[in-house]
Amino acid sequence: MSSTLPAIPGYSYGQPDVPFSPLSLTELEQLKQAVLWTSEDEKYLRQAGAVLADQVDAILDLWYGFVAAHPHLLRYFADHQGQPIPQYLEAVRRRFGQWILDTCLRPHDQDWLNYQYEIGLRHHRTRKNRTDQVTTSATAVVPLRYLVAFIVPITVTIRDFLARKGHSADEVDKMYHAWFKAVTLQVALWCQPYVFPGDY
Amino acid sequence: MSSTLPAIPGYSYGQPDVPFSPLSLTELEQLKQAVLWTSEDEKYLRQAGAVLADQVDAILDLWYGFVAAHPHLLRYFADHQGQPIPQYLEAVRRRFGQWILDTCLRPHDQDWLNYQYEIGLRHHRTRKNRTDQVTTSATAVVPLRYLVAFIVPITVTIRDFLARKGHSADEVDKMYHAWFKAVTLQVALWCQPYVFPGDY
Repeated sequence: MSSTLPAIPGYSYGQPDVPFSPLSLTELEQLKQAVLWTSEDEKYLRQAGAVLADQVDAILDLWYGFVAAHPHLLRYFADHQGQPIPQYLEAVRRRFGQWILDTCLRPHDQDWLNYQYEIGLRHHRTRKNRTDQVTTSATAVVPLRYLVAFIVPITVTIRDFLARKGHSADEVDKMYHAWFKAVTLQVALWCQPYVFPGDY
Repeated sequence: MSSTLPAIPGYSYGQPDVPFSPLSLTELEQLKQAVLWTSEDEKYLRQAGAVLADQVDAILDLWYGFVAAHPHLLRYFADHQGQPIPQYLEAVRRRFGQWILDTCLRPHDQDWLNYQYEIGLRHHRTRKNRTDQVTTSATAVVPLRYLVAFIVPITVTIRDFLARKGHSADEVDKMYHAWFKAVTLQVALWCQPYVFPGDY
């Protein structure tokens, strides 16, 4: 995939050290039905990827600005003195940019499903701070309620960026909703490590 | 509140038997910031309540039709033979209709926060099937991944109903996004019983 940036530290998509998702591909298909997923969404998500590709830094600036403006969110990137850890913020940022492209462009196969599990583990106390060897982080876990709540800012802020390349209002709306579904689907997958297996 | 229907079985909003939410009102305020909540959302959500009030049955028909069309969703209302339990579906439906109005019209106070916890418990194995004394249900829990995934259908299907009363496209969009935020916020709260306290 030409838009994959080379050598992002800690970005292990498709690598053998990514654990196997406890969810099956059949269960993934059923979950996709629950978010009303259609082949049209796939098409418009790919279009969104083309629209967003050269705006990734601007999107991340907006998202990071939002987090930085709220101490109760920034604390998940902060040390015990409450100071944000620049190397941690920067390391996550590079993978976050790649995540935007992956969300739009990667097929929903076993590698994709496994990596959603990995992302969940990296927010959960199982693996938070480990990918970037952050030893000074004050927080051991990103609370699940924020994972779910972030569906909103990660979704609604993307619409303006989707509208900047001259597409019709209808096309922007379709890209926007494909993005909304894709984000919600992923957050539902990221929740797995937080929940008793029988309740997930 | 005039739009509260009288005597809905199992609807215990504000009653003393509703447990106290483990989340504080301060933590709720912080979570609301994470979904970009503003006073404008409050205003447009109230407007949405007025728009939706006489369409509640049509909305529920649509949502129930969606669930009924997917055996892997309908099973949470089904018995061990896979047959949907009509009394269970109907009992939940009446509260679900009231939930639409409550989502739009109830203030986010302690009673509201407590009832979100109660709703979470009723989806979780802690209390699923108990409110309606369903003894034949084949499922002890609505899996968390479906709670999160349902943010999409519960959100996107509401837009057409919001657009049916002659409001401008801009007003419909504002009502729609206030609804989206309100639904996501509530789902984030409903997840609480599923998650280890330290991870929630």
